[in-house]
Amino acid sequence: MIKYSEIDKNDLLELKKILYSKYNDFKVANLKLDMTRGKPSSEQLDLSMDMLECVSSSDSSKTEANFDCRNYGLLDGTPEIKAMFAEMLEVEQNEVIAGGNSSLNMMYDMIARCFIFGASSESEPWGKLPETKFLCPVPGYDRHFAICEQFGIKMIPIEMDTEGPDMDTIESLVKDDDSIKGIWCNPKYSNPNGITYSDKVVDRFAAMQTKASDFRIFWDNAYVVHDLYNTSDSLKNLMSESKKHGTEDRVLIFASTSKITFPSAGVAAMACSIKNVEYIKNILSIQTIGSDKLNQLRHTKFLKNINGIKSHMQKHAKILKPKFAIVTDTLDAELNNLGIASWSRPNGGYFISLDTLEGCAKAVISMAKEAGVIITPAGSTYPYKNDPSDRNIRIAPTFPTIEELQKAIDILCICIKIVSIDKLL
Amino acid sequence: MIKYSEIDKNDLLELKKILYSKYNDFKVANLKLDMTRGKPSSEQLDLSMDMLECVSSSDSSKTEANFDCRNYGLLDGTPEIKAMFAEMLEVEQNEVIAGGNSSLNMMYDMIARCFIFGASSESEPWGKLPETKFLCPVPGYDRHFAICEQFGIKMIPIEMDTEGPDMDTIESLVKDDDSIKGIWCNPKYSNPNGITYSDKVVDRFAAMQTKASDFRIFWDNAYVVHDLYNTSDSLKNLMSESKKHGTEDRVLIFASTSKITFPSAGVAAMACSIKNVEYIKNILSIQTIGSDKLNQLRHTKFLKNINGIKSHMQKHAKILKPKFAIVTDTLDAELNNLGIASWSRPNGGYFISLDTLEGCAKAVISMAKEAGVIITPAGSTYPYKNDPSDRNIRIAPTFPTIEELQKAIDILCICIKIVSIDKLL
Repeated sequence: MIKYSEIDKNDLLELKKILYSKYNDFKVANLKLDMTRGKPSSEQLDLSMDMLECVSSSDSSKTEANFDCRNYGLLDGTPEIKAMFAEMLEVEQNEVIAGGNSSLNMMYDMIARCFIFGASSESEPWGKLPETKFLCPVPGYDRHFAICEQFGIKMIPIEMDTEGPDMDTIESLVKDDDSIKGIWCNPKYSNPNGITYSDKVVDRFAAMQTKASDFRIFWDNAYVVHDLYNTSDSLKNLMSESKKHGTEDRVLIFASTSKITFPSAGVAAMACSIKNVEYIKNILSIQTIGSDKLNQLRHTKFLKNINGIKSHMQKHAKILKPKFAIVTDTLDAELNNLGIASWSRPNGGYFISLDTLEGCAKAVISMAKEAGVIITPAGSTYPYKNDPSDRNIRIAPTFPTIEELQKAIDILCICIKIVSIDKLL
Repeated sequence: MIKYSEIDKNDLLELKKILYSKYNDFKVANLKLDMTRGKPSSEQLDLSMDMLECVSSSDSSKTEANFDCRNYGLLDGTPEIKAMFAEMLEVEQNEVIAGGNSSLNMMYDMIARCFIFGASSESEPWGKLPETKFLCPVPGYDRHFAICEQFGIKMIPIEMDTEGPDMDTIESLVKDDDSIKGIWCNPKYSNPNGITYSDKVVDRFAAMQTKASDFRIFWDNAYVVHDLYNTSDSLKNLMSESKKHGTEDRVLIFASTSKITFPSAGVAAMACSIKNVEYIKNILSIQTIGSDKLNQLRHTKFLKNINGIKSHMQKHAKILKPKFAIVTDTLDAELNNLGIASWSRPNGGYFISLDTLEGCAKAVISMAKEAGVIITPAGSTYPYKNDPSDRNIRIAPTFPTIEELQKAIDILCICIKIVSIDKLL
């Protein structure tokens, strides 16, 4: 392969013609491929259908301590689901609050709580301050950024490298500016670039000095057990590391079973210091009487414990591995060494992140759309949907079938080539 | 029966001795009866156990329109659950937003939304105003009042009569004061006094002029289908009446299946004007991807429609009628014509409301507690837990067994008599 930048102009024009003819062939096929969101496929959802039998009319609906899960009560969830999340997130059971079906909702509510009442009983509500800012490692999760945007929290992008976010910049910013109240982290198999934060990065998060005493790390551990291969990434325990520095109140960990069992009918949980748990439960007790405990019971009966979860996740991996492989194999075959794109090879999570030449992502996505392949809009992985280099494309390989995926990536590669040629010419 | 106030002082003292001896007999029995909350009994919950079979591993998890309820999506719920709530609440299907398991949570989130973002896109966030006030018909639901208290919304108590809240006072207050932003209503079988608002009251709510353009009626229709007898109360449709006056944007209706199927694992919904639906969905789309649609599917497969709900509610009524009867029969037998208490005789809902002589409720509840009968704390049915007359006691007859209930009300009657004698002496 020769780099596109080293190819003669006329040859590039010739190549473009050939590529356009392939592109047009696809276009007439009238495809409809949606690659926008990290959704499990129905084959994956079928893995958890037995869970629906775990709480039936002939079963007891009670916890081990004889609490009737059908009735009101247990604000922070069943003891069993708290124990399960404690194992999964490597925290104590009394550091867990289990909730409804959505960890996004729990994060949103936590931001709302900080905004209305403050991050702790000693601190000012963020909504009363002249300005609140959040650090946003990029590329990152669009729904995190959308929450900040809705609350008028100013977002500061932080570049990521292979170790995680740029800690030098983070440390120097939070040291001096007490309007910086938090950071969004997706520390394992980060959405979208698949990076797992290094031990060093975790250590620095635990140890760093923040001017704001109510600084909060929103540690969205969405892919904590979502390994694809036997050689999985390992993430250092932020909570126990923070305790060594007395900074545990800044740590808010989130997770859910949305991509373990069912996205719509999973269970979400958060983990934080006892002090935070007490503060949050105090506010939460006015918001609700409790979340769906029958569904929590269903989950603990089905998944049982961390070993149950891990063996269940291997079944997901078996379905997902060929899908991730098709994407990376095709990108390798089509784009390697052309000097027009680079992409991630994650060991888990839900995404592959691809970077085009500068200023090409929007054009690529728009071309793909015309050929019937819907990809997450360019810029989505950046605050305010603004990717200043217009380079990042998030590929979500989990939902489509193998066949659909192959076609979609074929088209994507053609689009990348055409747009890159235009860029180089 | 002679009125206590007409009994000679010495006879009252003698009577008090006899009552105390009965009271002490109960005390040594070491009872533990919890009458604090309006919880369905397990016998009632057993009525819905077949629902747990409605979505099993062998069933389709799809809506009629072929949407997979296991996966992400459908922010405002399945079409089927929206249709069911539309029938139940007598609104259009596109006026419904179905949610998670808790209508309390939906009301809380709506207050939070008004507080942070405003009640509509044209209005100021309540949190930015110097003062926000709510009208609170009393006696009322403690959890409504607790939300206001948490948000620092000043509560103005409004007296209730047999028609509903005092509309003269309400109309004169809201006409002139634009810091009054809303009112809590529990319009059918009101918690705790069982009153259903009259047609005239509903008409006046629809027609009234409010200085605040963002005034909102929180119409918590918690007991909309919770009739006890064939002669049930009927509540006029506030939404359709409001449309006649162009005031439909002020109406926010809430309900849930918590006391139809399972308190922990029911489905909640709200209904409001299309304009409000659009505004709320726009904000909600950042908070969550959607609620638990498998549980929504479970509900529509089990309850089917309003007729299914009504026949299911008759089974509840069969269990509840004897419980309500024991309370009112015992109160009738023990307290009638003594001039020391009056109580409600609701046609539905979850509570019986009892008024003692002025200044007696706290003492009665404290005496009952010493004898092992826990009743909702005095004052709970008033804003700031402050019943200025210290008279109102909320009796929740649904959860205890018939035997427990009989004992609890026997004790309650003795306590009322003793405290009343102390008051009169």
